[in-house]
Amino acid sequence: METKRLGAQTVALASPPAVMGYASVVGKKEGDGPLAAFFDHIEQDDSFGEKTWEKAETAMQRLALSMALNKAGLAACNLDYIFAGDLLNQCIGTGFALRGQDIPFYGLYGACSTMAESLSLAALMIDGGFASHTAAMTSSHFCSAERQYRTPLEYGGQRTPTAQWTVTGSGCTILATEGDGPRVTHVTTGKIADKGIKDANNMGAAMAPAAYETIKAHLQDTGLKPSCYDLILTGDLGQLGRDIVLDLFRRDGVELSNLADCGTIIYDLEGQDVHCGGSGCGCSAVVLNGYLMDGLKQGRWKRLLFCGTGALLSPTSTQQGESIPAICHAVALAAPGCERA
Amino acid sequence: METKRLGAQTVALASPPAVMGYASVVGKKEGDGPLAAFFDHIEQDDSFGEKTWEKAETAMQRLALSMALNKAGLAACNLDYIFAGDLLNQCIGTGFALRGQDIPFYGLYGACSTMAESLSLAALMIDGGFASHTAAMTSSHFCSAERQYRTPLEYGGQRTPTAQWTVTGSGCTILATEGDGPRVTHVTTGKIADKGIKDANNMGAAMAPAAYETIKAHLQDTGLKPSCYDLILTGDLGQLGRDIVLDLFRRDGVELSNLADCGTIIYDLEGQDVHCGGSGCGCSAVVLNGYLMDGLKQGRWKRLLFCGTGALLSPTSTQQGESIPAICHAVALAAPGCERA
Repeated sequence: METKRLGAQTVALASPPAVMGYASVVGKKEGDGPLAAFFDHIEQDDSFGEKTWEKAETAMQRLALSMALNKAGLAACNLDYIFAGDLLNQCIGTGFALRGQDIPFYGLYGACSTMAESLSLAALMIDGGFASHTAAMTSSHFCSAERQYRTPLEYGGQRTPTAQWTVTGSGCTILATEGDGPRVTHVTTGKIADKGIKDANNMGAAMAPAAYETIKAHLQDTGLKPSCYDLILTGDLGQLGRDIVLDLFRRDGVELSNLADCGTIIYDLEGQDVHCGGSGCGCSAVVLNGYLMDGLKQGRWKRLLFCGTGALLSPTSTQQGESIPAICHAVALAAPGCERA
Repeated sequence: METKRLGAQTVALASPPAVMGYASVVGKKEGDGPLAAFFDHIEQDDSFGEKTWEKAETAMQRLALSMALNKAGLAACNLDYIFAGDLLNQCIGTGFALRGQDIPFYGLYGACSTMAESLSLAALMIDGGFASHTAAMTSSHFCSAERQYRTPLEYGGQRTPTAQWTVTGSGCTILATEGDGPRVTHVTTGKIADKGIKDANNMGAAMAPAAYETIKAHLQDTGLKPSCYDLILTGDLGQLGRDIVLDLFRRDGVELSNLADCGTIIYDLEGQDVHCGGSGCGCSAVVLNGYLMDGLKQGRWKRLLFCGTGALLSPTSTQQGESIPAICHAVALAAPGCERA
């Protein structure tokens, strides 16, 4: 068999899987932002008709999955696997969303890297010959994240300047062996990076080294230059974290002029009072399954490197004085017809 | 390529990966139980020398990984991937154990099914041609689980008769393309089952339908009879959950006489005051990476079906009146030389 492993962390897919369908579902604030036109569904009521924020998150995932399946022309039972997870304790957003769905399911925990992690594994399962149709999905909800990670909403705590705003949204991608959609060409798997940042309100700084190391590993493993990509998208470092990644590459003499961050493009940073930008599993998920996929399909970009970043802390680890371990997984996507370019 | 997919949920591995190393680390209570002789390390101090129970769990995982690597004659940097997770919020046992380990890492959340889930994905990555060495790992700790899921230890709450005892332990398996160890021959991926059980002290009953459905799917997909396996091991349904699985199969006219449960064999149910038996990710992990692997290597069994079961609830979902979604993943293991039998 042709070797698929390139270097220490990267796989080049022998038969790049095609994106057959994708969908993004968001809340009101995201719908008021600059990417509104790219979302499939903007809900004005952030409870999504449910009694609790956690159930709202489940409702978002169900909607994202069913919209992505519809766009792919598939039923849930056509999926060989779904890879999914979220930020909630024991990933209950996902567990309850997939209850009754009749899909073989592997649960993931990758914090805000989950969209890239799930997309990686969904692609590998197809290229490995184990599946013909797979799905990748995740979500986050501002209100469920605030009360679980920070303070009750009613408390109205002051946000620090380095804080980010958890995106209310869910994104889902459906992959298939064949099709005319964008293709997943490479998967670079991250290692944990922890440079000692302990401030849970400064996740961008905690995650930036992981993004830097994974992008660097991807470029080394593939022998590609940063300019081979029209866009390198991290998600969700926010403004500060993005600047740190640029600085780290500058130390290596590399100007990453095509770097953007899902957390900085999903909101109007000036007008929407989100400090350093968006965060949460849903952030990179809805940017990918809307703005980025649309752009690839329409030929706006030929090649993208999608780099999901996650901070693997918990309130308990912070209370115990620990720093924040972070991880970044990268997935290379090519426009239809460009996968061999 | 030879088709690897058998039926709806099962993959038959074209080149069954070999178990190259495995290790199990447990606490004092597990070391006082009937499987004591099969554990690699029994720690008399359940804090594992750390200041918190969560850090003790991290210490256990580090030890299990390093012992498994030693037995395999590998260094961490030889691993192409590790799949791991645990029960703690945001899986911090795992995140902190893998900090600084220099291994590409995919985080999982499958509750007590994590050993089977991680072993499934670690095997698929090798068979898919993406890796030559992978690892699968998980852990649980009685004390960290009690305070997170139930009540503070100091509270001394009375346990109900259907309750199980969370195992303090961590297990790790190292797989490789080649070797003279047991082989992973089939992977059956579970779907979520939820029959409406709401009692978080009766997880065995909540998980039994998932075990029944996955075992049934495995037998249907492969065309094998239950008697093709020397042992079908669920983990960790406990005594009540195991009896429910037997009843469900009896309704189909099948007597599953070779069914055992990791939760019922790890402790002396009469003498160790554990009510329905053991539970926790660590339960099936340490039984697999000791008693079961030893038995396969020594020819005690030719074929085993290892079925990890997980309850995907959280204290929040229980407080919100939800029932318990459950999942079961099955991995078929063959003794050296028996993988084609």
